[in-house]
Amino acid sequence: MAKMNAFYAQSGGVTAVINASACGVIETARKHKDKIGKVYAGRNGIIGALTEDLIDTSKESAKAIAALRHTPSGAFGSCRYKLKSLEQNKREYARLIEVFKAHNIGYFFYNGGGDSADTCWKVSQLSEAMDYPLQAIHVPKTVDNDLPITDCCPGFGSVAKYIAISTREASFDVASMCKTSTKVFVVEVMGRHAGWIAAAGGMAADNENNIPIVILFPEVEFNQDKFLANVKQKVEKFGYCTVVVSEGTHYPDGKFLAEAGTRDSFGHAQLGGAAPVVAGMIKDKLGYKYHWAVADYLQRAARHIASKTDVDQAYALGKAAVELALKGKNSVMPTIVRVSDKPYKWKLGVAELKDVANKEKMMPRNFITADGFGITTKCRAYLSGLIKGEDYPPYKDGMPCYVRLKNTAVAKKLKGVFKL
Amino acid sequence: MAKMNAFYAQSGGVTAVINASACGVIETARKHKDKIGKVYAGRNGIIGALTEDLIDTSKESAKAIAALRHTPSGAFGSCRYKLKSLEQNKREYARLIEVFKAHNIGYFFYNGGGDSADTCWKVSQLSEAMDYPLQAIHVPKTVDNDLPITDCCPGFGSVAKYIAISTREASFDVASMCKTSTKVFVVEVMGRHAGWIAAAGGMAADNENNIPIVILFPEVEFNQDKFLANVKQKVEKFGYCTVVVSEGTHYPDGKFLAEAGTRDSFGHAQLGGAAPVVAGMIKDKLGYKYHWAVADYLQRAARHIASKTDVDQAYALGKAAVELALKGKNSVMPTIVRVSDKPYKWKLGVAELKDVANKEKMMPRNFITADGFGITTKCRAYLSGLIKGEDYPPYKDGMPCYVRLKNTAVAKKLKGVFKL
Repeated sequence: MAKMNAFYAQSGGVTAVINASACGVIETARKHKDKIGKVYAGRNGIIGALTEDLIDTSKESAKAIAALRHTPSGAFGSCRYKLKSLEQNKREYARLIEVFKAHNIGYFFYNGGGDSADTCWKVSQLSEAMDYPLQAIHVPKTVDNDLPITDCCPGFGSVAKYIAISTREASFDVASMCKTSTKVFVVEVMGRHAGWIAAAGGMAADNENNIPIVILFPEVEFNQDKFLANVKQKVEKFGYCTVVVSEGTHYPDGKFLAEAGTRDSFGHAQLGGAAPVVAGMIKDKLGYKYHWAVADYLQRAARHIASKTDVDQAYALGKAAVELALKGKNSVMPTIVRVSDKPYKWKLGVAELKDVANKEKMMPRNFITADGFGITTKCRAYLSGLIKGEDYPPYKDGMPCYVRLKNTAVAKKLKGVFKL
Repeated sequence: MAKMNAFYAQSGGVTAVINASACGVIETARKHKDKIGKVYAGRNGIIGALTEDLIDTSKESAKAIAALRHTPSGAFGSCRYKLKSLEQNKREYARLIEVFKAHNIGYFFYNGGGDSADTCWKVSQLSEAMDYPLQAIHVPKTVDNDLPITDCCPGFGSVAKYIAISTREASFDVASMCKTSTKVFVVEVMGRHAGWIAAAGGMAADNENNIPIVILFPEVEFNQDKFLANVKQKVEKFGYCTVVVSEGTHYPDGKFLAEAGTRDSFGHAQLGGAAPVVAGMIKDKLGYKYHWAVADYLQRAARHIASKTDVDQAYALGKAAVELALKGKNSVMPTIVRVSDKPYKWKLGVAELKDVANKEKMMPRNFITADGFGITTKCRAYLSGLIKGEDYPPYKDGMPCYVRLKNTAVAKKLKGVFKL
């Protein structure tokens, strides 16, 4: 077999560890120069492939590539760009094949969530139909932790660790001030469809840290009376309470709390955030002094407190993707298989893309307590291993040293401009 | 001189390192058992002294006290309770002396900001007037960094480090997504009167990290047109931009951005937060996709990424307070004296409380760039040393081990209940 180049792209919302997967892909490919030529990365994800805007990663030093392991964000740029179905827009898929052909690309590594797994699968199918041999391997990534088959998704463990730690720290703060000041602290976390990240807030409490936490999950329809009663009961018992609210928390009719219809002084509807809405309720109905925070991007970018498990898995999955390709696999995704909870042990597995694409894994109902406001022992057992271990980046003068690559462009070979 | 007990209390908003000062006080006192008896802590700050609700720290193991060094929040409880002036409420000051007398307390260590320095000073004066010998030493603490004389205040360095790192991380995130998604990220930070914390956001950028940052300081009157023009120019040049907005940012008439008059669906005025207000402006006037975060308590509680300089100084100041007391000093506060910027070197100094009380140190105008949206080289030189070094807490199963003390009450000796 002639030596083929590889294409790698990052897709969707970036994470603290997606670059660790990139590092795994590139370092492993570099170890197999007999079989894999250059690794080209898509500038701004799949858009880079469509517009033939490729980055030559071979121009980066080994040191720079190694530093990707401890650098958050997407080093080559990512994008929110969902390819339509093959029927609706075969043009885009055909273009990808055209670009891959022009640059002698035989390996397609796509690093993303459910949508990109679907794209990866379609590209693989089309390459067969078009008689252009291409091995399409998906590398899982999503802070939402909602991919099927794999036990967890890289990116999630680090967000979970950040939220668990931040919730513990803020709770300690409030506990020491509640006598005369703030009694309820509300922190809003990501997760529009699934409560995985919100659940992590529950890890702030444990046998040695009896912290009163109320969690609002997207999986549980919001009931204001029950919620306020729970908060009140905790404040009366502990003197304070911490609320972790998922951005996806909604009323029975599906309306998000964050869309509670706040308006600015001109009467324009304003996108509010769930935390201030919840805080407002607490003030109006219970009269407690409150503070609220919205973690937003801080949570998914927080490489400074990434989970070692998460970093190791992200790297291992990138490496495994290349190894699967070298074994001749196509249309697959390496996965994390849980071996045991305590001690937490994991190994690598593999899933067919047809089984992964367009399927969401929701949080099991038995991970949420009967009252709907907490996490169960089963959930703790699941989360515990994922937040385990610290993997600190190097620092210089008090600041983390995150790498910025040169991102040198590959000369274009195709004529004309592809319109997105 | 008969052996006297010591009283220690934490005041006002807690920080990631105020317990390191407590650790310094208690460990140093324990080393001088010939001169200092027990260290009693006020439960919930000065309220504990007023209500004779004292904690016997001698009941805590050496290990537990040592763990205070890496535990955020106020281990004995803090409070927002400002004593009135001596003229207005001599009753409270007299009560303090009464409680101190009952418990044979000869040393008063008060750990707080400007208000508590004032209280400490008055207690010292009154003890002289009442002929009850008491050595009152103030231990500086405030994330606001606004105490005079001392070069910096414990608590600030760690918040500054957290904000600098978080701003860098989120900026990396936005940079990789801006082609098709968020172009402006807004993060709101603490600092109602002074822009010290907002300034720290500027440290996210440096010679190796060319990050476009716009800072909104409380020291600079907000001008929407200039601000939006600055954001627009940066987005056009870099593709994205990060805005760090201080909660104290206000219009020329003094009205805070956060009070921009947002209303909920029932028409009630809502406390908004400056970040969503700024984000709304950017969307309305420039049309850029945005995200916003409000760090709130997460920033001041973030012991997981505390500055080593800050932790060392907090401990050293607690230790110095006891040593000053042992030298017979009264009505003073140990301070940080800057020896050099590069390399950053500091030593301990001492200030008279009369020179500290009720004075705010604002950010020098020459720390802010001429356009009002950035920090100068002078400011960088000042901040650089304060965020230097990491001082990670110990972890167990992925979570930081923060100590919770037993906080055993001291038996009351006085009759009757003191009404606050």
